[in-house]
Amino acid sequence: MTSRSTGDATAGEQATVTFTELYERVEAIFRNAGLSAEQAGPIARMIAAGERDGAASHGIYRIEGCLRTIRAGKVNATAVPELQDDGSAVVRVAAHDGFSGAALEVGVPVLAERARQLGLAALVIHDTAHFSALWYDVEALTELGLAALALCPSYTAVAPSGGREALLGTNPIAFGWPRPGRPPYVFDFATSMAARGEVELHLRAGTPLPDGWAIDAEGRPTTDPEAALAGALLPFGGHKGSAISIMIELLGGIMIGDLTSPESLANMGTDARIPSHGELILAFDPARFAAGRPGDPAQRAEVLFDAILGQGARLPGQRRYLARERSLAEGITLTAAEVEQLNRFESLGLDAVAD
Amino acid sequence: MTSRSTGDATAGEQATVTFTELYERVEAIFRNAGLSAEQAGPIARMIAAGERDGAASHGIYRIEGCLRTIRAGKVNATAVPELQDDGSAVVRVAAHDGFSGAALEVGVPVLAERARQLGLAALVIHDTAHFSALWYDVEALTELGLAALALCPSYTAVAPSGGREALLGTNPIAFGWPRPGRPPYVFDFATSMAARGEVELHLRAGTPLPDGWAIDAEGRPTTDPEAALAGALLPFGGHKGSAISIMIELLGGIMIGDLTSPESLANMGTDARIPSHGELILAFDPARFAAGRPGDPAQRAEVLFDAILGQGARLPGQRRYLARERSLAEGITLTAAEVEQLNRFESLGLDAVAD
Repeated sequence: MTSRSTGDATAGEQATVTFTELYERVEAIFRNAGLSAEQAGPIARMIAAGERDGAASHGIYRIEGCLRTIRAGKVNATAVPELQDDGSAVVRVAAHDGFSGAALEVGVPVLAERARQLGLAALVIHDTAHFSALWYDVEALTELGLAALALCPSYTAVAPSGGREALLGTNPIAFGWPRPGRPPYVFDFATSMAARGEVELHLRAGTPLPDGWAIDAEGRPTTDPEAALAGALLPFGGHKGSAISIMIELLGGIMIGDLTSPESLANMGTDARIPSHGELILAFDPARFAAGRPGDPAQRAEVLFDAILGQGARLPGQRRYLARERSLAEGITLTAAEVEQLNRFESLGLDAVAD
Repeated sequence: MTSRSTGDATAGEQATVTFTELYERVEAIFRNAGLSAEQAGPIARMIAAGERDGAASHGIYRIEGCLRTIRAGKVNATAVPELQDDGSAVVRVAAHDGFSGAALEVGVPVLAERARQLGLAALVIHDTAHFSALWYDVEALTELGLAALALCPSYTAVAPSGGREALLGTNPIAFGWPRPGRPPYVFDFATSMAARGEVELHLRAGTPLPDGWAIDAEGRPTTDPEAALAGALLPFGGHKGSAISIMIELLGGIMIGDLTSPESLANMGTDARIPSHGELILAFDPARFAAGRPGDPAQRAEVLFDAILGQGARLPGQRRYLARERSLAEGITLTAAEVEQLNRFESLGLDAVAD
């Protein structure tokens, strides 16, 4: 990829950068904030990938929360993730309170090998400052020809269906299916109707929330962003989404012996920091599952995708892949605000963030 | 359990029976219809369990569809399920076109053993006339102290989010978490807003459908039951539920080398018969996952459940467990229509159903 950077971007101007340029700038910010190379590299790669894909929710604006967590001493800046492999279907990486990205990069190759060997395997990341887009995590496995399901708790923000108070996290779940020669089928969503950040956008814009997003502190439905932030978000899909969110607390928190969403919030003290919990990723080898059965799973999946696209529906991830294609061809366009943020983090380091 | 049967129940009167009495009557109906003992027993157990739990969707009224499938020669009435175990994390049972219940009973003990050994394992049921409530299947594993996730395709009835035509099945997904000394945390739901049967109930009652259930044959939202039956159901939770439903076609159909929902409908020719496809069940051993980690997963889960119940929300399955408790204490009350159905199937056998 050749550089298409505008060079000396200053505050107030948008800029176009290559993936590598962006990665290197973000990596340097984290190195200057005290992270080891092993910790800084994976985070910088993911943030650059978020910007490349137009997925700003895991892009530059999230650097601030990471820096706050480092400044608060709530992450082990030089943690060395430790592989714990007993040869079973459960591969563990003890993150030792480091960021999840470093642990993921240690665990994925072993998970993939184990899934090929046994047909199915799990990766558990323990004790981590969790900052990761789950689509990014499952794509690491689809690139290796595997299907993957990833889930984790987050921070208490969501009331269970029929309840009155925030208890569950926005608990994301992601799934990936490999498509040879094309971007994978990937979904990744919060199990709440909306994220807290989206409610905050409505608050700043002075616009009401859509129906069904939230309840107030008394448990009554509300479209008032302020009342919603004092109350709770609602799960997507009513009692069904609520049941899935509870499953995520059970499998991705309690079963693996890591924190649930309320425990993570209590541990960090504020949702302005990166949450501390674990992550569970299942990897499936379609070649193993389909062995000896009629039909090639890769081809059969394309028949299904064609039928979906043929009736005018979209596949999840399509928008992200279009942005990716454009970014790789033309460079990643950063907004003026993003350029300003990068400049500020580069010049001030950890002093750029409040305690 | 002592018999509380009213004895000679005749058409038009409700009756109270024990689980065992109901099981034996249903088993005899299937034996008379030509099923082997190995095929008839598991179906009869599940139907009796459905009635015990007040879950009529898998109770007596479903006998008719099973008999139709037998009469049409679309199920192997004397199939002997074949365990295919290579020692990996994927345990298979070839159902050889028999009903899924018999295959499940062969596979579950091996799945449980493998999950305890490896931490995580999968059961794949191949080539089966699929008649099973997934809550029933995951409960078979929670009874053994394991968590379980089950999923399978069904019959084409649901349009993907943003689409215009039925393509996906109502694709159920179920999850179970064991609770020592109590009924498990279990959810089991269709990934559509509603089942086709519920739309048919509205048609018969002459009542409009709730918003968001269905589209007509031109892909427009409709509340007219007749237009909905000519069109398509919609997934629950918008694009999120749609993405999960597609995942179920991929994992529970294509990956395991069994039929997708459209393929199953094409194979059976009508949705009045039991669909032919596979099923995927994952089993997790919480004791293995949590080993060496702080806290007991069983106790921690109860803290979460208490917090949910303490704010007035319910756990999925609660209604079923209340019905179960009542049934076990007082007997299972059959409606007059159910008594009439049983009587008819007993006297007419396969002649009770149309081709």
